[in-house]
Amino acid sequence: MLTDIEIAQSVELKPIKEIGEKLGLLEEELEFYGRYKAKISDKAMSRLKDRRDGKLILVTAINPTPAGEGKTTTTAGLGQAMAKIGKNAIIALREPSLGPVFGIKGGAAGGGYAQVLPMEDINLHFTGDMHAITSANNLCCAMLDNHLQQGNPLGIDPRRILIKRCLDMNDRALRNVIVGLGGKINGVPREDNFIITVASEVMAILCLAKDTVDLKERLGNILIAYDYEGKPVYARDIKAQGAMAALLRDAINPNLVQTIEGTPAIMHGGPFANIAHGCNSVRATRLALKLADYCITEAGFGSDLGAEKFMDIKCRMAGLAPDCVVVVATVRALKYNGGVPKAELSTENVEALKKGIVNLKAHVENMHKFGVPVVVAINRFGTDTDAELGVIDSCCRELGVSYALSEVFGKGGEGGMELAKTVCDVIDCKKSKFAPIYPDDAPVEEKINDIASKIYGAAGVAFTNQANKSLKEIKALGGDKMPVCIAKTQYSLSDDPTLLGRPTGFTVTIRDLKLSSGAGFVVAYAGDIMTMPGLPKVPAAEKIDVDDNAVIHGLF
Amino acid sequence: MLTDIEIAQSVELKPIKEIGEKLGLLEEELEFYGRYKAKISDKAMSRLKDRRDGKLILVTAINPTPAGEGKTTTTAGLGQAMAKIGKNAIIALREPSLGPVFGIKGGAAGGGYAQVLPMEDINLHFTGDMHAITSANNLCCAMLDNHLQQGNPLGIDPRRILIKRCLDMNDRALRNVIVGLGGKINGVPREDNFIITVASEVMAILCLAKDTVDLKERLGNILIAYDYEGKPVYARDIKAQGAMAALLRDAINPNLVQTIEGTPAIMHGGPFANIAHGCNSVRATRLALKLADYCITEAGFGSDLGAEKFMDIKCRMAGLAPDCVVVVATVRALKYNGGVPKAELSTENVEALKKGIVNLKAHVENMHKFGVPVVVAINRFGTDTDAELGVIDSCCRELGVSYALSEVFGKGGEGGMELAKTVCDVIDCKKSKFAPIYPDDAPVEEKINDIASKIYGAAGVAFTNQANKSLKEIKALGGDKMPVCIAKTQYSLSDDPTLLGRPTGFTVTIRDLKLSSGAGFVVAYAGDIMTMPGLPKVPAAEKIDVDDNAVIHGLF
Repeated sequence: MLTDIEIAQSVELKPIKEIGEKLGLLEEELEFYGRYKAKISDKAMSRLKDRRDGKLILVTAINPTPAGEGKTTTTAGLGQAMAKIGKNAIIALREPSLGPVFGIKGGAAGGGYAQVLPMEDINLHFTGDMHAITSANNLCCAMLDNHLQQGNPLGIDPRRILIKRCLDMNDRALRNVIVGLGGKINGVPREDNFIITVASEVMAILCLAKDTVDLKERLGNILIAYDYEGKPVYARDIKAQGAMAALLRDAINPNLVQTIEGTPAIMHGGPFANIAHGCNSVRATRLALKLADYCITEAGFGSDLGAEKFMDIKCRMAGLAPDCVVVVATVRALKYNGGVPKAELSTENVEALKKGIVNLKAHVENMHKFGVPVVVAINRFGTDTDAELGVIDSCCRELGVSYALSEVFGKGGEGGMELAKTVCDVIDCKKSKFAPIYPDDAPVEEKINDIASKIYGAAGVAFTNQANKSLKEIKALGGDKMPVCIAKTQYSLSDDPTLLGRPTGFTVTIRDLKLSSGAGFVVAYAGDIMTMPGLPKVPAAEKIDVDDNAVIHGLF
Repeated sequence: MLTDIEIAQSVELKPIKEIGEKLGLLEEELEFYGRYKAKISDKAMSRLKDRRDGKLILVTAINPTPAGEGKTTTTAGLGQAMAKIGKNAIIALREPSLGPVFGIKGGAAGGGYAQVLPMEDINLHFTGDMHAITSANNLCCAMLDNHLQQGNPLGIDPRRILIKRCLDMNDRALRNVIVGLGGKINGVPREDNFIITVASEVMAILCLAKDTVDLKERLGNILIAYDYEGKPVYARDIKAQGAMAALLRDAINPNLVQTIEGTPAIMHGGPFANIAHGCNSVRATRLALKLADYCITEAGFGSDLGAEKFMDIKCRMAGLAPDCVVVVATVRALKYNGGVPKAELSTENVEALKKGIVNLKAHVENMHKFGVPVVVAINRFGTDTDAELGVIDSCCRELGVSYALSEVFGKGGEGGMELAKTVCDVIDCKKSKFAPIYPDDAPVEEKINDIASKIYGAAGVAFTNQANKSLKEIKALGGDKMPVCIAKTQYSLSDDPTLLGRPTGFTVTIRDLKLSSGAGFVVAYAGDIMTMPGLPKVPAAEKIDVDDNAVIHGLF
């Protein structure tokens, strides 16, 4: 069997100019980054602003398991399949982070015959967005530490600095550091920590900003520290937002690439789906809706994290409304949810599937709570048996939800035609009555309670003393006006990663809260969230190489 | 008077495709980065490899002073002037570092009417080379700390780790840090420090590598640490070089841009001129020599640092030979060398000029020692008087060296026609007999002694105990086979920044040595070299901004 990169390198890509032309983009609206990548300038949106929007399809999934669900693969494959059934579709995805590529994860641009290309570029530097975000974030940090060094006129408390330096690298040694050592000329010593770039608030801001004006305002609004009196200090107080926005001038524009079958794909922005909202940029989605009849997008992790935030944060802020949600699942992952160990997932086990399928039910029912029609996509594996697929069939009938088997990994767009037809049928027949799960102006605790009870299925929510303290501060700074972004394990509907299936009776514990005042949401921590990953015993980097013809090997 | 960025933004740039066509580059040899930047692929060099080389002109300068010399401006202006006198020329420059743009320095792409454009892009992310270098360097660091964490099978001594993380940012607080805190799962605690990206050995390697094979070999040869037994540990020992080279796949290709008058300019690589060799990349210079009759390049700081290393490191390793050296000076800077304070440089002072002109003499004589014909370029200011220019005239006559006044800052190429003619005349009449200043195989001490006595004018060289200890280690690792790169203050010919003019009788003290075994040279430290700059009291960043039309302001 060929690896993803071998499949990717066997394909003759179309010049990105052609992909742009097919979308009706003018050449002056494209900034080329090599032959197969382009940024789409603001001019396109200005020209198309009055055009009717296409249909918005969100691809989400059950809780991720070690078995793998293939959400991005399904998204890419669904886009490819739309062309096969004569529909005009575009894909709008997040762009991958560089750091994890060198760890365990490999690439994040789909897989098999449902990939977004050029996968080497997309997984490495792409068009430089991540690097621009890293620079903008770290400029603000350098200006802040310089403020301390130059007499600290704002009286910033070095023990209460909130903005963190970032790198797009899995670098465990930077999780806890002391900076500013070496005496008077070398800064003010203080404890600090680095985060991975995609976990930065600047990334979340880039994804939510409407335009440069909005971007600058949001950057200026980042709460970077408290002063000695406990008053907030924002990025604008150290005059950082202008230079930060200058560094993001190009990064704010969506990137155009293509799938393995030439389907247009916009990849732009990639915030964490726990401490941030986990969706591609608002600007990319809006533009994609103008460029095709069907815009297929995805959100991070399972629907309890990514889709909930897509609806409650992104759609709410940007005035978007999804027409259909596709929930991706695999028989293997549902059996895992039913208690089967990873090594035994290839063996038929109807009982375990029947037990684990409650996880799928929960995700489907949750999506219905937002008033959006749902389609279940079963990412089919060769080891799935007829008996097992029968269980899926009964479950979906019981839920009154359409489903389709997808084989896009092995067959590309052709393997997704049934899914594409099902999605189009559902959009034609069922009208979305989208509404967020909680009102704009509810107090923060109430918002958290709504999400926990309605989406996670929790019996209640507990706030630690630290959380109550933070809550008070955040409310004083206007937090009640903002949506809530719960940082929680992706592995369970609850806040306990070991509770698979559809847990009940649990209490979600909120340990602390943080105001992402630039992004415009309140982060509620329901667990320890790792914001700087580490490398494994044998990092993927050891096998990555480039040959004499500048061809990259070992990405997967 | 208009600022540099205002002048830059008033110019209508030619599409970079046109600039490439004018050079005879084929469209398939260019990878576009937007409309006005491109990378030139390997295919161009393969196609042109048998073409006769153009003439190689190195622009260098007297020791830098606060008065400013305008070396990059003169380089850009000389290129522009060549076209005005009907010559076919190309410029090959270093690319600027992002960090200092936000500090005091402003941009580094020339000034006035002699600039390389688009200056905003060039000074910010350009084509991402700096970011790629940062990532490649930091990947190696993350892999090294991960090696410590995963049981340290190589027995690396955490107290003797040589490779440092880098950021392209002026960030004083990262000069001295402790990493790896937070207990067992968060790494191995150790002292560390960050450097600015251009100070990394990866940058020097990118600039010296012939091709991807050579790049990978050099990356693998980076001495990253010693083990507990004192044995060297190289990047290849932790299998980092393949992934590092993959990250540099595009960065290794030269960038094509243009001057304000449409002169083709290749900007590629920008290593420090103290701890590294301070020149643009070998690949860029080689290619530029194939693309035009005259290739004008420059090296960092004064000729004692940049030009010496250009000749003794870059030319030696790459088999290049300059046909002419242009030494840039200003009347103001020479008066400063004669003891005039900065505030009084606009007043005529013939005596001070006569006293300070010894600095120019030293640089001219030094360049003659390499067997290369010299032209003096006086970057003219409105405040220069006839009497002062008379002193320059006498000095150059006495030295038997041609000179020309240059007014490219205010007048563009037209202001440099006299200089361009003089340079072409000298190249036509005087044959270069280039030879490096010391033989390849002399011991390290002898090489240092040669540079110090012949170029700096030192009476002797002293080695500290630490230097002698390092010297022994480095010799054991093959250091005697490598050229020497002296890290010294740029402000004086000596190792004491306060000694202006042409100091004599001084001893150069070598405090320590370091093996840059990937780059292929031995760094000898003659002073404290700052490898991570800081921001000033009021950082330039505070004034940098981007407006609603995505136009950047406040760069200068």
